[in-house]
Amino acid sequence: MSSSDSHQTWGGRFSEGPDARVAAFTESVSFDARLAAHDIRGSIAHARMLSAVGVLTPDEFGQIEAGLAAIGERIAGGDFAWDPALEDVHMNIESRLTDDIGALGKKLHTARSRNDQVATDIRLWLRDAIDALLGEVRRLRGALIDVAEREADTIMPGFTHMQVAQPVTFGHHMLAWQAMLARDSERLGELRARVNRLPLGAAALAGTTFPIDREMVARELGFDSVIDNSLDAVSDRDFAIEFVSAASLIMTHLSRYSEELVLWMSPAFGFVDLPDRYCTGSSIMPQKKNPDVAEIVRGKTARVNGHLVALLTLMKGQPLAYNRDNQEDKEPIFDTVDTLLNCVALYADMMPHVTVHADACRDAARKGFSTATDLADYLVRKGVAFRDAHEIVGKSVQHAIAAGCDLADLDLATLKGFSTVIEDDVYDVLTLEGSVAARNHIGGTAPDQVRAAVARSRARLAD
Amino acid sequence: MSSSDSHQTWGGRFSEGPDARVAAFTESVSFDARLAAHDIRGSIAHARMLSAVGVLTPDEFGQIEAGLAAIGERIAGGDFAWDPALEDVHMNIESRLTDDIGALGKKLHTARSRNDQVATDIRLWLRDAIDALLGEVRRLRGALIDVAEREADTIMPGFTHMQVAQPVTFGHHMLAWQAMLARDSERLGELRARVNRLPLGAAALAGTTFPIDREMVARELGFDSVIDNSLDAVSDRDFAIEFVSAASLIMTHLSRYSEELVLWMSPAFGFVDLPDRYCTGSSIMPQKKNPDVAEIVRGKTARVNGHLVALLTLMKGQPLAYNRDNQEDKEPIFDTVDTLLNCVALYADMMPHVTVHADACRDAARKGFSTATDLADYLVRKGVAFRDAHEIVGKSVQHAIAAGCDLADLDLATLKGFSTVIEDDVYDVLTLEGSVAARNHIGGTAPDQVRAAVARSRARLAD
Amino acid sequence: MSSSDSHQTWGGRFSEGPDARVAAFTESVSFDARLAAHDIRGSIAHARMLSAVGVLTPDEFGQIEAGLAAIGERIAGGDFAWDPALEDVHMNIESRLTDDIGALGKKLHTARSRNDQVATDIRLWLRDAIDALLGEVRRLRGALIDVAEREADTIMPGFTHMQVAQPVTFGHHMLAWQAMLARDSERLGELRARVNRLPLGAAALAGTTFPIDREMVARELGFDSVIDNSLDAVSDRDFAIEFVSAASLIMTHLSRYSEELVLWMSPAFGFVDLPDRYCTGSSIMPQKKNPDVAEIVRGKTARVNGHLVALLTLMKGQPLAYNRDNQEDKEPIFDTVDTLLNCVALYADMMPHVTVHADACRDAARKGFSTATDLADYLVRKGVAFRDAHEIVGKSVQHAIAAGCDLADLDLATLKGFSTVIEDDVYDVLTLEGSVAARNHIGGTAPDQVRAAVARSRARLAD
Amino acid sequence: MSSSDSHQTWGGRFSEGPDARVAAFTESVSFDARLAAHDIRGSIAHARMLSAVGVLTPDEFGQIEAGLAAIGERIAGGDFAWDPALEDVHMNIESRLTDDIGALGKKLHTARSRNDQVATDIRLWLRDAIDALLGEVRRLRGALIDVAEREADTIMPGFTHMQVAQPVTFGHHMLAWQAMLARDSERLGELRARVNRLPLGAAALAGTTFPIDREMVARELGFDSVIDNSLDAVSDRDFAIEFVSAASLIMTHLSRYSEELVLWMSPAFGFVDLPDRYCTGSSIMPQKKNPDVAEIVRGKTARVNGHLVALLTLMKGQPLAYNRDNQEDKEPIFDTVDTLLNCVALYADMMPHVTVHADACRDAARKGFSTATDLADYLVRKGVAFRDAHEIVGKSVQHAIAAGCDLADLDLATLKGFSTVIEDDVYDVLTLEGSVAARNHIGGTAPDQVRAAVARSRARLAD
Repeated sequence: MSSSDSHQTWGGRFSEGPDARVAAFTESVSFDARLAAHDIRGSIAHARMLSAVGVLTPDEFGQIEAGLAAIGERIAGGDFAWDPALEDVHMNIESRLTDDIGALGKKLHTARSRNDQVATDIRLWLRDAIDALLGEVRRLRGALIDVAEREADTIMPGFTHMQVAQPVTFGHHMLAWQAMLARDSERLGELRARVNRLPLGAAALAGTTFPIDREMVARELGFDSVIDNSLDAVSDRDFAIEFVSAASLIMTHLSRYSEELVLWMSPAFGFVDLPDRYCTGSSIMPQKKNPDVAEIVRGKTARVNGHLVALLTLMKGQPLAYNRDNQEDKEPIFDTVDTLLNCVALYADMMPHVTVHADACRDAARKGFSTATDLADYLVRKGVAFRDAHEIVGKSVQHAIAAGCDLADLDLATLKGFSTVIEDDVYDVLTLEGSVAARNHIGGTAPDQVRAAVARSRARLAD
Repeated sequence: MSSSDSHQTWGGRFSEGPDARVAAFTESVSFDARLAAHDIRGSIAHARMLSAVGVLTPDEFGQIEAGLAAIGERIAGGDFAWDPALEDVHMNIESRLTDDIGALGKKLHTARSRNDQVATDIRLWLRDAIDALLGEVRRLRGALIDVAEREADTIMPGFTHMQVAQPVTFGHHMLAWQAMLARDSERLGELRARVNRLPLGAAALAGTTFPIDREMVARELGFDSVIDNSLDAVSDRDFAIEFVSAASLIMTHLSRYSEELVLWMSPAFGFVDLPDRYCTGSSIMPQKKNPDVAEIVRGKTARVNGHLVALLTLMKGQPLAYNRDNQEDKEPIFDTVDTLLNCVALYADMMPHVTVHADACRDAARKGFSTATDLADYLVRKGVAFRDAHEIVGKSVQHAIAAGCDLADLDLATLKGFSTVIEDDVYDVLTLEGSVAARNHIGGTAPDQVRAAVARSRARLAD
Repeated sequence: MSSSDSHQTWGGRFSEGPDARVAAFTESVSFDARLAAHDIRGSIAHARMLSAVGVLTPDEFGQIEAGLAAIGERIAGGDFAWDPALEDVHMNIESRLTDDIGALGKKLHTARSRNDQVATDIRLWLRDAIDALLGEVRRLRGALIDVAEREADTIMPGFTHMQVAQPVTFGHHMLAWQAMLARDSERLGELRARVNRLPLGAAALAGTTFPIDREMVARELGFDSVIDNSLDAVSDRDFAIEFVSAASLIMTHLSRYSEELVLWMSPAFGFVDLPDRYCTGSSIMPQKKNPDVAEIVRGKTARVNGHLVALLTLMKGQPLAYNRDNQEDKEPIFDTVDTLLNCVALYADMMPHVTVHADACRDAARKGFSTATDLADYLVRKGVAFRDAHEIVGKSVQHAIAAGCDLADLDLATLKGFSTVIEDDVYDVLTLEGSVAARNHIGGTAPDQVRAAVARSRARLAD
Repeated sequence: MSSSDSHQTWGGRFSEGPDARVAAFTESVSFDARLAAHDIRGSIAHARMLSAVGVLTPDEFGQIEAGLAAIGERIAGGDFAWDPALEDVHMNIESRLTDDIGALGKKLHTARSRNDQVATDIRLWLRDAIDALLGEVRRLRGALIDVAEREADTIMPGFTHMQVAQPVTFGHHMLAWQAMLARDSERLGELRARVNRLPLGAAALAGTTFPIDREMVARELGFDSVIDNSLDAVSDRDFAIEFVSAASLIMTHLSRYSEELVLWMSPAFGFVDLPDRYCTGSSIMPQKKNPDVAEIVRGKTARVNGHLVALLTLMKGQPLAYNRDNQEDKEPIFDTVDTLLNCVALYADMMPHVTVHADACRDAARKGFSTATDLADYLVRKGVAFRDAHEIVGKSVQHAIAAGCDLADLDLATLKGFSTVIEDDVYDVLTLEGSVAARNHIGGTAPDQVRAAVARSRARLAD
């Protein structure tokens, strides 16, 4: 079979087949073979509709459906020889169908083009990927809520600017992580609805002259609706960009978890430990135990942000309706899905096994005058204006730094030197437990609020 | 007033004021003064709540409210001296309040921090910006629908790969543009709901020891709900990233419009013209009339994509709860809003005044064998399998290229030489009008379908 | 062999082997196996140095060298089983070496770490890739210069804002393309010097306690110098970012060529044609011949820009000295090199075969009043100030548009109506040939200047 | 003056002036006024050349030069009213010149266009900015070398994966920082050469019909050479992208410094302190002293990366020769320069005043078994193969963790239980001082090597 023959799908007008380097450069089956199951599903739905509207006979449809199903099984079983000379997943399958069932296979492509076909395939594929990702995100949220409940009373320093700010509980911190993912679930759910619209029927760009029934195909494939304009149907890649945008946010969240885990495992903090099976060592330094999973997840954030830029750059300034540039949309989507599923799943596996060193957390919270704000609030309750209270406590801290001690170590006389309204009861507000317990409103770090938030989060997750 | 004094808000613990270069580098009032009206609105709501829960007396609240309102008026009137030494919009306003109403002003900051204050301000501001943007997007969608209706029958070439593919109508093309924006409206509406949640009450990061009523503040300010975790409330910048992501998609859409307008105005195409008032000329070439608006809009896509990358890069790997890096979130948000409002509004202004040169469009559609697919479909209807029909038409095109004519110019005998099923009725399907009229299903380019789509689009827009 | 045993390189301190999902997530051999030949070359140089300084005996070195060479041959022959459980290319090779030559293999890693080893490997690999890329860029520059010479007299419209601006020659345009690549060659040459510095000897991060001779290793491997600071040696990824930055510029240039080729092949322009073997067709539209190579190259620009963002994001805010995030540096580098080599090579192949349709180019140059500036310059030479001349020509153009003709079609009386200084000789400056010939200074589009520039460009390329 | 009149520079062909919103959208003088001094310098050089070649008389040139100089002084003195209706810096100055010196001013624009004019201006401006930046980078390098010398013996932990790896000296770490900047200086120097080429003479895109002398203008303005192709001269924005790429790398380096400073100032580390004047406080937490400069610098990295993406996106797929999109190149360049100059200067100011807490550094280096590699190297010197030594030390570390002590705290009998080759001299290699002193080769952390590297770095800086 000559090269030209192998391109018979579009070769009638061509006097020579593609240059070998061109063929290798333009083929996509090396990555879009991944769409095979969805391509077959879409083709069967298309053929069933062609039969319903009379373009194919029921018998023709039956043969096509059986032929495609058989090909699907061979592919699933790893028993299918992909041929780059046939360009892409679509032509590989169609060509094999014609080999298998004869000239009838040549009728399958009636009333469609690869432009609407690939748009359909990738939407079907991505819809499944989103559902899988939603599942993993839910699993990780559940894990974080469980840790939050377990550590609802564990006091650690809350940081701003990486300086000790105020004491919080470890459980409260875990719920902050969970809150990020809760937004991610919302976003994935919303964009899924925009993915789940049917482009098929747009044909190359203008629709088709055959009396197709697009709503029937949409129902058959589980799409919520048909895309209302044929040019838009083949040119739109919003769904890809929107998905990768949402993925970048998920990775941004995981990168923040990772940064914190890496710090917390550093001997400088020592807040947590991970089982050896989630860590690796060094080829030269025998003592090392490194939090590699967290580091690689943080690194992979970069990769997904890169994919987002790639897709936006790809689409910028593209005239309608279809340009071959768009072939470049698939690898970023695939790699984003793979990366996300791995990273979220690993965190969901790992988080239940994080050991929290409560003593180290508590010790760290005692550094850095973490209850200074409580002292200021105490003064306000005694009638001092907040700004004046702030100034008074600032002076007290300056004094304590010079004295090399904590605020709670200053005796009452010294404290009264800064403000005469201070009495013996001040020492209650300077304790870590007093500090966290006092932040007792919705969203606050008081252990009772953390437990209430755990319950609310569980309820939302169960929805 | 010494520099140190001017920083009395946090200076108690400091032995020297900021270095001059540091002060200039870290101040934000040069750009966040823009939040003033929203800052005041938020402060009033906060003070009203403090009064409701007994932290302020009704009289104190009254004085604070009046003082803030007076400051708001001065700012609106341009009669307010912003002082960079006071760092930011919050401290400028609070400091002025204390100057105006005395020591009572120092109580306003009770039970909050700048961390939750600025998060509240920016969400209020962005909510208004989104509403304004939704209005402009709606206006542009209306304009596109109007042009679509007007040009529902105007035939132009549909392009793929910038090669003439099949004839479409200009109206159909306009509806493809509109369809992109319809998704943008959806996205803006959805993310608005995530913007519209109240962070206030998180204080610095852990909540506050005062008996605050966050739901009351939320109601007062029109927020849908309170943010459920204090650490998340001050550390979250998802809403900024999500907004700029959606903005990047809008700009991507406008960049595609722009690319097409620029091409269509090029003499090579000559499809459209714009009134002189939407164009500019050249300082050297006296004949030039350039579609600058479209070009600059296309160029500004780059700017918004850059902002998106900036925000994602900013947040990657940030440990909780608040880091000063986040000060960098405001300028990208502001500039994105300004850019979008300008670009969308200009398109909304300009599109009704686009003159379509129907003859040039029609002539271009006659080039490039745009009805070849119609011939293939004709053959299919005569019983030829699609792939065979495709091959036959390919050969016919090759023949016509060599002969230097269109398919419709080949006589019947010649056409029959390619396939004996071809009859006299073939010439009907080779016309441009026949071609577009035949794509008569939902989403197709047939003028009747375009008019139906216009009606549907208007109905959705009116929702 | 248990999983823990398989990780004996760092397992002494570990009580359990890695979790299966962690192992799959953290392994890199699936992509870094590509570094094998360079890894072996580096290891041999390292061992030779260890022998020279007495850490290995000459006999030990001989065995190690032979063992590594044998492994290298097996890998080159495709006869090597990579084991993901051994993590990376380094450990796969070292482990095999110990299998092959016994316990002596365990001495190879003396005085180095994987941190400096991988940094050495990737620099060696990238140096070779840069040299290959420089070769392809040179080949493409040569091709463009050849086309420029061939088309030095072919007149086409020069565009600004996609409006016809002034006539230029096709050869001049090709030299503009070439000039972009000439800068790329410079940049690649300069950054190669920064790639070509030896990190080996930094060990994990601090150097080693063995009496190593880094200069010897540098000479052996062809490095220009050793990296002067061990922390920098293992933490620096500037070379990767700098290379991908330069690559992004090359792709930006190719994207501009591609945009122009796609337009020029559109029937609206029809300036050029490509042989069928550089084009592909459509599965539905039998007449289509698409410039896919140009489109995919344009699309792949997005991919490389994405890699640049990924690498910058990866390195932002990383504390020294080494973090596992950096494992993510390799895939972007590899893919960038592959993409660039393909794209530049395809253009180098394709450009000599571009057919220029001189008539279509010339016809297009006659539209749009492309010689209006020549008329203004004519008026200046007759004593009119430039701004006044510009105004006069603008009015003339307005008149010609209304009359539906070109400036050259206006009779002398009419022209004199706009300025009395106009005489019969004006018609010479209004011709296309007169216009291009008059731009006769260095950098101008006059055919003689183009030929001179061809000669200069050839001379520089030969350097 | 009507709007149309105000646009007389290109208005001859236009029947109406720009729409108000269009005028506001397309004007650039609000940001490009910054180029005024360079625009005037370029115009004077252009006029001098026009005089030299006879297009202007010497007297005309004299009047133009004086007129431009006077305008330059008014602008420098803040006494110039910029008019947005005149679009840009060029037309504002030219228009004023004509007001000031009469009709002669209209001759200045002979033989040039705004396309080559603005390209010249921005290159002149950027060349100065690069020189200023090179100066600040040099100042910071000097500061880092000074700190390195001062702290050449101060032991701190070297980290990999944020785990304690091996002891290094603080001075060694500072030299790693300096090494990054040394590469930045190289890059800036190299790209400066590509900025410093003259585009003027390209006119709109094709050159000019006047007998210009471009080399004369190049000499006059200090350019190294003229750009060899007129289309390239007006379309090239490589220099902008290349500059911002180099700037992104500088910011990436500063972001790494910043991350480390922020961590080192956290109480968890406590390695360094900064004078109060480089820090700021909290509005709510009176005890806080935050390293804001480092945080904002880290944040501003995002901004510069965003600008890089903006510029790459801007240029992607642009057809030659000039498109109005390019107006968007200026703000990213300006903001990048401002950001870089500020950030580098602040670090240069601040670094000499960093207080290093040697005791805290030393204490941290004693955690995490930082001399374990030294023990492995010791075993190798006693004849154990490295991989076996690594395993032995790994077991020893596991034992020490269980025992809650350091390796140096294990008695000889215990150590001999892991390897019989261990003798009393082992305790020497387990000290921090022994460890750093032993890494005594070029690039190693031994204090003597650090001092030698300080000397080398000083010498290079002085070049």
